[in-house]
Amino acid sequence: MRILIIGGAGMVGRRLADRLLSDGKLGSESVKTIHVFDVTKAPIESANGIQVDTEAGDVSDAKTVERLIAHKPDVIFHLAAIVSGEAEVAFEKGYRINMDGTRHLLEAIRLLGGNGNGGYRPRLVFTSSIAVFGAPFPNKIDDEFFRAPLTSYGTQKAIGELLLADYTRKGFIEGIGIRLPTIVVRPGKPNKAASGFFSGIIREPLAGQDAILPVSDDVRHWVASPDAAVGFLLHAGTMDLAQLGDRRSLTMPGLSVTIAEMIEALRRVAGDSAVAHIKREHDPQIAAIVDGWPRDFRTVRAEQAGFRADSDFETIIRAHIADEEKRRSQG
Amino acid sequence: MRILIIGGAGMVGRRLADRLLSDGKLGSESVKTIHVFDVTKAPIESANGIQVDTEAGDVSDAKTVERLIAHKPDVIFHLAAIVSGEAEVAFEKGYRINMDGTRHLLEAIRLLGGNGNGGYRPRLVFTSSIAVFGAPFPNKIDDEFFRAPLTSYGTQKAIGELLLADYTRKGFIEGIGIRLPTIVVRPGKPNKAASGFFSGIIREPLAGQDAILPVSDDVRHWVASPDAAVGFLLHAGTMDLAQLGDRRSLTMPGLSVTIAEMIEALRRVAGDSAVAHIKREHDPQIAAIVDGWPRDFRTVRAEQAGFRADSDFETIIRAHIADEEKRRSQG
Repeated sequence: MRILIIGGAGMVGRRLADRLLSDGKLGSESVKTIHVFDVTKAPIESANGIQVDTEAGDVSDAKTVERLIAHKPDVIFHLAAIVSGEAEVAFEKGYRINMDGTRHLLEAIRLLGGNGNGGYRPRLVFTSSIAVFGAPFPNKIDDEFFRAPLTSYGTQKAIGELLLADYTRKGFIEGIGIRLPTIVVRPGKPNKAASGFFSGIIREPLAGQDAILPVSDDVRHWVASPDAAVGFLLHAGTMDLAQLGDRRSLTMPGLSVTIAEMIEALRRVAGDSAVAHIKREHDPQIAAIVDGWPRDFRTVRAEQAGFRADSDFETIIRAHIADEEKRRSQG
Repeated sequence: MRILIIGGAGMVGRRLADRLLSDGKLGSESVKTIHVFDVTKAPIESANGIQVDTEAGDVSDAKTVERLIAHKPDVIFHLAAIVSGEAEVAFEKGYRINMDGTRHLLEAIRLLGGNGNGGYRPRLVFTSSIAVFGAPFPNKIDDEFFRAPLTSYGTQKAIGELLLADYTRKGFIEGIGIRLPTIVVRPGKPNKAASGFFSGIIREPLAGQDAILPVSDDVRHWVASPDAAVGFLLHAGTMDLAQLGDRRSLTMPGLSVTIAEMIEALRRVAGDSAVAHIKREHDPQIAAIVDGWPRDFRTVRAEQAGFRADSDFETIIRAHIADEEKRRSQG
């Protein structure tokens, strides 16, 4: 089995590649090659008898995407995207990468597959986002609630979902879109994403550093761990897709937790001294952005399709600690 | 006021132009010029002191669209589209006209307007369709039901709605999308659209000709008259758009009528002899297509925004008869 990961140098993409390399297979089929494509070369090497090719390039260049698809990967994970904050500022770049890039990918597959006439038809796992939803919404968003994004990023992801469904319906691809929750705890350095503090208030205190909490304790959000995200991708890459019918994008199960609940979980795991590192500095701008984000979902379809959320937030914290210990021991 | 009608040679576009020419104004502002663009030159002439320019061209050519926008029309009605049946067969053409054409239009406006920095920002009225919805759906579809189109045409319209909302949110346009019901009674010759019989079973019997009814009498559908469609466009072209907030596309009010109710209205207007012209020839293929179409809506937002449906189906029939008489007396 040949696998292509577009956007494979990011946090989730690298973790997915690592997992495929250590498992040696996707579902019941053994993995022969992994092609990792991103705007920078991912630091991933061949291992376990699996050939890894890494490549840097531009997904908004149609010719580049055609070349990627010419290798006829069996499963394609499409994770490449300009993130929400940047797509909002760099309007043209966001549309070029997030919309045109996705369309180039779909078109390259369609044309190589002879326009659906029984030719090449790979599985395409498209990572979408809960940013396809915009306020006002009900406390729990269900599977038939409409997409009314309030960012260009969310708009581009919603368009990707529509294209994915149509190309699947026409028989050009075997598509599935998965809307990832906010990933917590992200490893590494703090970033400037508006959602960054959700990871920061756990990651920094565990490392003995202060973290700023810019919103109030009763803010509720929809989160999943990095491991859960990889689990979603692997399941999407192997599950029977026929059960989805024509509706190919699913909101992934997550945990709906408040900041207060996250802090209490941190206290149970790492004590009062860790919690003391959280400094409350209200930021009205970030608070306003977060106020427009979904808080909770009823993910009935995804659960019926076998996607599983993290069990609880404490387990997410403990998994993060284990990851960090493993990383320190390795390097 | 300068008005541009893209797709102005079609039935609704021509009726809109006629109405603007006879009213002499849009809302409270007098109309100076009407630029009518379509794939063929529309047979519309200057009248009532209003200059009409007709032009034939290709909306999927970015340069052509740039030229159209260079005239800085105050209000743009975008009606151009490859219809449902053709977009399903001619995949590339459908995307080129319905998706790329709409995007070229949005991009031409954005770039001429200096990327939202207080420059040119026209009102754009985009005609969408209830084809953005796909079965299964509730008996009455409400304003927050999700778009899950089952045709490429519906997909392209749904993408147009998303782009329209994002370009409006960013301050590039004053956008509004209106999802038209099936227009009944369409004048002229029968066509091969799957929905054609909804008009045919009224139009042909009134003209003393037989019409085929390919579905059962209990089929329910969502319809509006040609006059109602023009009324929607004029209202969308003049109403205060601020009340819409970020959700810029609305399902237009219509009548939810069964075939049986349509036939009984025809009987009241034109008697048993007209009804006798309706020949029942069940067509399983058309029946299957129609089965996937929405039947009824709760159009609360559109009604609050001042859009008005036809009063009843009998009035639609009488208006069609009056139109035909007027046409005969003129020609």
